[in-house]
Amino acid sequence: MLERPIIQQRGFCNTTDDTGVTGFRLLLRNPNYRGVAGSLVDGADVIVDGHPFPREAQRWTLQGRTFTLDELRASTDVRWQLDETATLAVDHPGGLSAGVHRIEVAVHLRRPYIPEVAGPSVFRAATTATIVPDDDGTPHGLRYGVSLYSYSGDLYTSMTLQDAMADIADLGATGIEILGEGNIPGYPHPDPDWIDTWHRLLDRYGLTPTNYGSWVDTAMWRDRDLTAEEGRAQLERDLRLAKLLGFTSIRPKFGVVTPELDPHPVWQPAVERVLDLAAGLDIVICPEIHSPTPIRHPVTQAYLDFIDRTGSDHFKLLIDTGIFQTAPVDDGHEGFEGKKRPAFLEPLAVPMSDLADVLPHVHFIQAKFFEIDDRLTDLHIPWHDILATLRTAGWQGWLSSEYEGRREPYRGRDQVRRQHALLRSLNGSAAPA
Amino acid sequence: MLERPIIQQRGFCNTTDDTGVTGFRLLLRNPNYRGVAGSLVDGADVIVDGHPFPREAQRWTLQGRTFTLDELRASTDVRWQLDETATLAVDHPGGLSAGVHRIEVAVHLRRPYIPEVAGPSVFRAATTATIVPDDDGTPHGLRYGVSLYSYSGDLYTSMTLQDAMADIADLGATGIEILGEGNIPGYPHPDPDWIDTWHRLLDRYGLTPTNYGSWVDTAMWRDRDLTAEEGRAQLERDLRLAKLLGFTSIRPKFGVVTPELDPHPVWQPAVERVLDLAAGLDIVICPEIHSPTPIRHPVTQAYLDFIDRTGSDHFKLLIDTGIFQTAPVDDGHEGFEGKKRPAFLEPLAVPMSDLADVLPHVHFIQAKFFEIDDRLTDLHIPWHDILATLRTAGWQGWLSSEYEGRREPYRGRDQVRRQHALLRSLNGSAAPA
Repeated sequence: MLERPIIQQRGFCNTTDDTGVTGFRLLLRNPNYRGVAGSLVDGADVIVDGHPFPREAQRWTLQGRTFTLDELRASTDVRWQLDETATLAVDHPGGLSAGVHRIEVAVHLRRPYIPEVAGPSVFRAATTATIVPDDDGTPHGLRYGVSLYSYSGDLYTSMTLQDAMADIADLGATGIEILGEGNIPGYPHPDPDWIDTWHRLLDRYGLTPTNYGSWVDTAMWRDRDLTAEEGRAQLERDLRLAKLLGFTSIRPKFGVVTPELDPHPVWQPAVERVLDLAAGLDIVICPEIHSPTPIRHPVTQAYLDFIDRTGSDHFKLLIDTGIFQTAPVDDGHEGFEGKKRPAFLEPLAVPMSDLADVLPHVHFIQAKFFEIDDRLTDLHIPWHDILATLRTAGWQGWLSSEYEGRREPYRGRDQVRRQHALLRSLNGSAAPA
Repeated sequence: MLERPIIQQRGFCNTTDDTGVTGFRLLLRNPNYRGVAGSLVDGADVIVDGHPFPREAQRWTLQGRTFTLDELRASTDVRWQLDETATLAVDHPGGLSAGVHRIEVAVHLRRPYIPEVAGPSVFRAATTATIVPDDDGTPHGLRYGVSLYSYSGDLYTSMTLQDAMADIADLGATGIEILGEGNIPGYPHPDPDWIDTWHRLLDRYGLTPTNYGSWVDTAMWRDRDLTAEEGRAQLERDLRLAKLLGFTSIRPKFGVVTPELDPHPVWQPAVERVLDLAAGLDIVICPEIHSPTPIRHPVTQAYLDFIDRTGSDHFKLLIDTGIFQTAPVDDGHEGFEGKKRPAFLEPLAVPMSDLADVLPHVHFIQAKFFEIDDRLTDLHIPWHDILATLRTAGWQGWLSSEYEGRREPYRGRDQVRRQHALLRSLNGSAAPA
């Protein structure tokens, strides 16, 4: 699907040639109600951060072919269809800075069937959009991914799986994290055709499956809890499905029995019964350390003790960066009633030294966040400190975007781009602590 | 795609069995960020027009199977996936009246991984939605269709072609009108697979292709107008493509040369050169009578003279009901600058007697409208008078919804449902004038 606004977030980037950065490009949706011949496209004035780029100087790419405005006006065999974007390339030596820009566009179309007295056909749009800088190439051991959770609400309503993958690739990430029961049509028995499509799309967008979120719903029925054997069976089902799709870790979320997220006691026997299977499939089982549970806490300690006791190298921690939250979050969470603010949205502010202590046991990091403003400031999560801690430890692994702020349409997509711009910008500056 | 709001417009209808109308049903999107086992669905309280329907009394259909709430709570092998709707059936003998209803829903889900202190997981949604009455079965010769133009902005951003067809079928219409250059991917050379899919979907949704909108862009280039031969070639291209897709009329919109929509003079020689082809393909070519051009006007008269002169029965009029507009329209039209209100949005208020006069030459009616309020009152178009005039004349043909109001997401879908509810409700009462 295309994004509803005329100015697409996906595809906004700087352009380069042999001489360096030459300008930027924008993708536009056709603002008219019909497709038109390229000759009827009369250019688009662009203003970025108040700086005008008049339409005469731009180049248009339609249906894979690139035109100056004069060439487009004279063209005979190219169209701007309703279901295809146009790419507008704008000369601007040095390009745009990494971060959020204010963009205004006025698309001019000629419509021969509308009398001239009605005025010219000009379609105006304005938005902010984010330039994500290229990776700086420093061998830092971190790899960037995105969880489909970030697109909750948009997926299946204005975004297909393929759109999500295109978005992730477009911002330069290479990892994709999914929710098993959520993003797999027909779960737990997806159609073989869907599995083929999944692998084909991974290839096409250059993405690596990272973590697979699963649940063990211990309170699935009202009259009794799951048995350890039932828990084991659910874990096996998800482990095998994760393997089929190419994932290298799963995060099973067990039902909890206390406000501090103590998992249901079946977790230990259930997990223990699949450790050999996990080793055989080479999938790491990762319990999630999630606010309001800090790192120094009996729940986390129980996971560390389990590692110690079993000696397994296929059971490690997953850190959700919400535990480092420094300010309360008061929006974006539906489904909670009778509480001003659920405990997990209070600032837990786990110290970096605690993270450093457990990093040897951490397999995966969900880069949870809620809001990044127009200046690329995260209002809640201290990314500079987190990145510095990871670099100091030489930690290697995936940092997987998990946007959890307000679920307005398109906001997750925009915020994930901002987060990647922020992380990449910090990457160079976040020297070891 | 699913509709973004939890309460789906599509699928809202009364339910019947042998005893008559038993209640109504609603389709819901899963409001959680993950799919869940059916046993974790704890019902949904529904309020319609202030009348509560508690969750205990409802039946849920998930993945094709129907459950009481108790059965759902005890279920072991059914799920509510993120990409599938749940159908909620509510007992209400006699059902809901035709028209717009205020619906509030509170979906209860159990989430074992969220501590109970966080409160129950209740997801609330509210909307208006429209019950479209069944056709009254009167043999009145009118057939109801919908133009994809109604879904401009939504199509390709939150709605696929299949979604549009499902929406049209869901409201009981049987005709589909398209814009050739707009709704055919790869126009004018769609992929054979797409053509197969088109015919398969027509079959699936029981839809008949009606009218195919085309353009002859006489001012396609800035330095010269199209020749009559070029116009003919464009007409031939669209006639053949329309035939391939099963359409029985095309509306070629020629470029205009006056504020009153006088078409470019190539229209006559261009059309004349394809009259035999149109007869051979059995496709009626329909110039559109569109505000600000009334019926008693040299432009319309020229079309009638053309019919007279050529004796063709494959050239007839298409009436856009915007010509009957009784109040000005001031919203929903992008692309116009320098004019308070384009001429075609002023009320032209063509008298019904003029319509009656030309009806023998009218092949197709685009049921243009802009806004229908919560009481099913159209603010601009006098449907009672139009329907009465058509019935008096015994006119037979398609009335094809063409929503042209504000392009807010989902508004076109909602308004088309309202229009069909209005037209069906009037059908019985609009006795011949």
